[in-house]
Amino acid sequence: MSAPTGDIGLIGLAVMGQNLILNAADNGFTVVAYNRTVSKVDEFLDNEAKGKSIIGAHSIEELCANLKRPRRIIILVKAGAPVDAFIDQLLPHLEKGDIIIDGGNSHFPDSNRRFEELKKKDILFVGSGVSGGEEGARYGPSLMPGGHPDAWPHIKDIFQSIAAKSDGEPCCDWVGDAGAGHYVKMVHNGIEYGDMQLICEAYDLLKRVGKFTNKEIGDVFAQWNKGVLDSFLIEITRDILYYNDPTDGKPLLEKILDTAGQKGTGKWTAINALDLGMPVTLIGEAVFARCLSALKDERVRASTLLEGPSVEGESPITDRKKFVDDLEQALYASKIISYAQGFMLIREAAKEYNWKLNNPAIALMWRGGCIIRSVFLGEITSAYRETPDLENLLFHPFFKDAITNAQKGWRSTIGKAVEFGVPVPAFTTALSFYDGYRSAQLPANLLQAQRDYFGAHTFKVLPGQENDFLKKDDWIHVNWTGRGGKISASTYDA
Amino acid sequence: MSAPTGDIGLIGLAVMGQNLILNAADNGFTVVAYNRTVSKVDEFLDNEAKGKSIIGAHSIEELCANLKRPRRIIILVKAGAPVDAFIDQLLPHLEKGDIIIDGGNSHFPDSNRRFEELKKKDILFVGSGVSGGEEGARYGPSLMPGGHPDAWPHIKDIFQSIAAKSDGEPCCDWVGDAGAGHYVKMVHNGIEYGDMQLICEAYDLLKRVGKFTNKEIGDVFAQWNKGVLDSFLIEITRDILYYNDPTDGKPLLEKILDTAGQKGTGKWTAINALDLGMPVTLIGEAVFARCLSALKDERVRASTLLEGPSVEGESPITDRKKFVDDLEQALYASKIISYAQGFMLIREAAKEYNWKLNNPAIALMWRGGCIIRSVFLGEITSAYRETPDLENLLFHPFFKDAITNAQKGWRSTIGKAVEFGVPVPAFTTALSFYDGYRSAQLPANLLQAQRDYFGAHTFKVLPGQENDFLKKDDWIHVNWTGRGGKISASTYDA
Repeated sequence: MSAPTGDIGLIGLAVMGQNLILNAADNGFTVVAYNRTVSKVDEFLDNEAKGKSIIGAHSIEELCANLKRPRRIIILVKAGAPVDAFIDQLLPHLEKGDIIIDGGNSHFPDSNRRFEELKKKDILFVGSGVSGGEEGARYGPSLMPGGHPDAWPHIKDIFQSIAAKSDGEPCCDWVGDAGAGHYVKMVHNGIEYGDMQLICEAYDLLKRVGKFTNKEIGDVFAQWNKGVLDSFLIEITRDILYYNDPTDGKPLLEKILDTAGQKGTGKWTAINALDLGMPVTLIGEAVFARCLSALKDERVRASTLLEGPSVEGESPITDRKKFVDDLEQALYASKIISYAQGFMLIREAAKEYNWKLNNPAIALMWRGGCIIRSVFLGEITSAYRETPDLENLLFHPFFKDAITNAQKGWRSTIGKAVEFGVPVPAFTTALSFYDGYRSAQLPANLLQAQRDYFGAHTFKVLPGQENDFLKKDDWIHVNWTGRGGKISASTYDA
Repeated sequence: MSAPTGDIGLIGLAVMGQNLILNAADNGFTVVAYNRTVSKVDEFLDNEAKGKSIIGAHSIEELCANLKRPRRIIILVKAGAPVDAFIDQLLPHLEKGDIIIDGGNSHFPDSNRRFEELKKKDILFVGSGVSGGEEGARYGPSLMPGGHPDAWPHIKDIFQSIAAKSDGEPCCDWVGDAGAGHYVKMVHNGIEYGDMQLICEAYDLLKRVGKFTNKEIGDVFAQWNKGVLDSFLIEITRDILYYNDPTDGKPLLEKILDTAGQKGTGKWTAINALDLGMPVTLIGEAVFARCLSALKDERVRASTLLEGPSVEGESPITDRKKFVDDLEQALYASKIISYAQGFMLIREAAKEYNWKLNNPAIALMWRGGCIIRSVFLGEITSAYRETPDLENLLFHPFFKDAITNAQKGWRSTIGKAVEFGVPVPAFTTALSFYDGYRSAQLPANLLQAQRDYFGAHTFKVLPGQENDFLKKDDWIHVNWTGRGGKISASTYDA
């Protein structure tokens, strides 16, 4: 038998898998393709893969036999049990030092577990975020690999070759240990949820308050795509708004059911934020907005029962340019908040899970190839390169100034939404966060007093207010009513 | 040896445990008290428990020996491993049909597990929410028991005797199977988080925008406590605002550190809402507000760097009465939303976990004794008694009218907060929810179009817009760019 020629193997020939294979082949690599339903392998070989450096494998054994050592195998299947099943099938055919790469949307705790299990068997596990949808997979995705660091030198060349490029730099770098790659991909997806929700709110205001036509809204997005909001999601929104139903030439968008699913990575990000105690409010609201959208029938009933303002007939907006410019600022400022929150979460995760995460590299990975790619992420990359230990994105002069300048339009837009009864949960939570974050003093002192009043939970004294009764660092309990005992609730929380 | 005389046993003599024992003794029951640190038993017997129908036990064995059959034992210790440890210690001394009641703040999945494990051993497990803080435990808490239904007849008399009463009815009823009692307690605590956050936002606006003194804010809460907001939390807020530091006679509240913890039941509620896909946004924001409060040092730095409006010097409010009245409406409307969301979550949980939950009984349990007790919960009890299958609290005429009337003040209050830079995350998320919920059409159609554009995720057609191209119930994929393939992303989500 001749020496194997396959540079990398790939399991799972759905749209992402096929495109990733074609991408790697275009970049000069020989790819071995395998799929559980084997007929799909032949179909792929006979069509899209024809004439390219792609080898079809009809069994796991054949897949492994065709790969150079150390074997590099990407699994691109549905997250969960199927990943474990393929790992189990692969193991008997692998040797020490071979590399299994899970490129699916796995939850990072699963990747942590697989990393540990495979480490014991001397197999190098890599969990890699892959973003960019079918287009990205085909022409250059954003890749976020993490796991066993010994794997990186063996996959770096392939990964960085097939990845998107931004100003000549690949949007792919080593993220960190264990499940760090999938963690960063999860946060990416959470931010994607947020970006999409912000765009939806802008569209809704243009439509319901501004009474813009779809063509006019498309023009607004086209214009925004030339400025600070220049990004893939703004660009495709423009295209979507211009797209008409071939049947009658009317805007297709207005015929799409307004019900979105949310059982995925956005939810995981929000739950992780709650677990780590980080106020990632914008992603939280974006996930909940999808939940509310899903209650379509109930909303339709509610719309006939519940009263509130709405704009009937002509738009109340007289200065359309100002309305659009204010809205752009609202979107921009909210987006800055969302990314600041996302990097706060990443900072906390690095601490909590003991990962060394590289902020400029993460920003660069998101700069191109992926769904949230944007000019904006170039600014974030620069900010973190300039100040690697930047405490918060909002503290960098570029973003500090941007948000200062955007504030008037941001507040004015929210004022209009509140007045005319259009929901803007993401715009408002972003502003609440900003106003809360820049408050040296928040009303949580009252909350602590309440907890001590009803549950003897104790509180601490505000620095500068210490006295004989209120001692620094003490957990203080006050007998507010004169009735309760002196026992504080150290072991029981009611 | 004479027949045992103990009606009920209690393990854990922290403040809640001691008070619950004294309460039960006052109601004519003989209670056997035990604590891991046994010296605490003697201390309690020699002091608070002296002369009452309370028996001290110095071992688990003694505790069990002193109880009538079936034994009824309440465990009131820190949630988690300590509960399992005491259950394990108890088991060798119990007989079939004995009842173990976990009265701590256990997470409902743990109660589900304990219920199943003990069922196999013929021990009846009850997980009971207990709310009301130390005062409540002593003079009448709200009790929310769930678990093995066979236990209820044996504990009903004791539980309903020691529970708070509302218009003569005990604030205690059987909640449902397995962990249902702790589930309802969890949602109660989530709502408590929300109520507290709403009060904090009102206080903050009165202070920072209205420039009211603490005495004046106390007067506002005193006035509110006579109206629709009449509740325990409003009442204690009044007391707190009137309370002065004995050292210098200045308001104590302003000397308390504004940093709140959040690792408990509020977080669980928000996570459960995300898991069940229910938009319980107000509790979510309340939890995140605590997270943000905890970043005190970072906020202090941010306050020196980040710009935005603030009220320096005199208050811009000219009509103080209108300002206060609008604020009352904002608080009331937001509170209605929060409870509507809470009952939406309970409705979904009943479906998901296959529990029969009784809404009027839940509202009545919360009506008195517990931290969120209020006149308002009497209205909710009435609404659910009148219309047991009420789809949403907001659809009941009482709440529908209340929120209609409150809207002007609600929107005006948020407008002021946005203008003057005071964070009101709970007020605004409540309004966004209301405006979203009453929208037959939300912008999630754009979101679905985006997902189909970049990930071939498909969408459905809006009812009434079907045609040959857009078929009813089909999952439709559009080739938006003319470039991508026809493969939809059925098995892989990017």
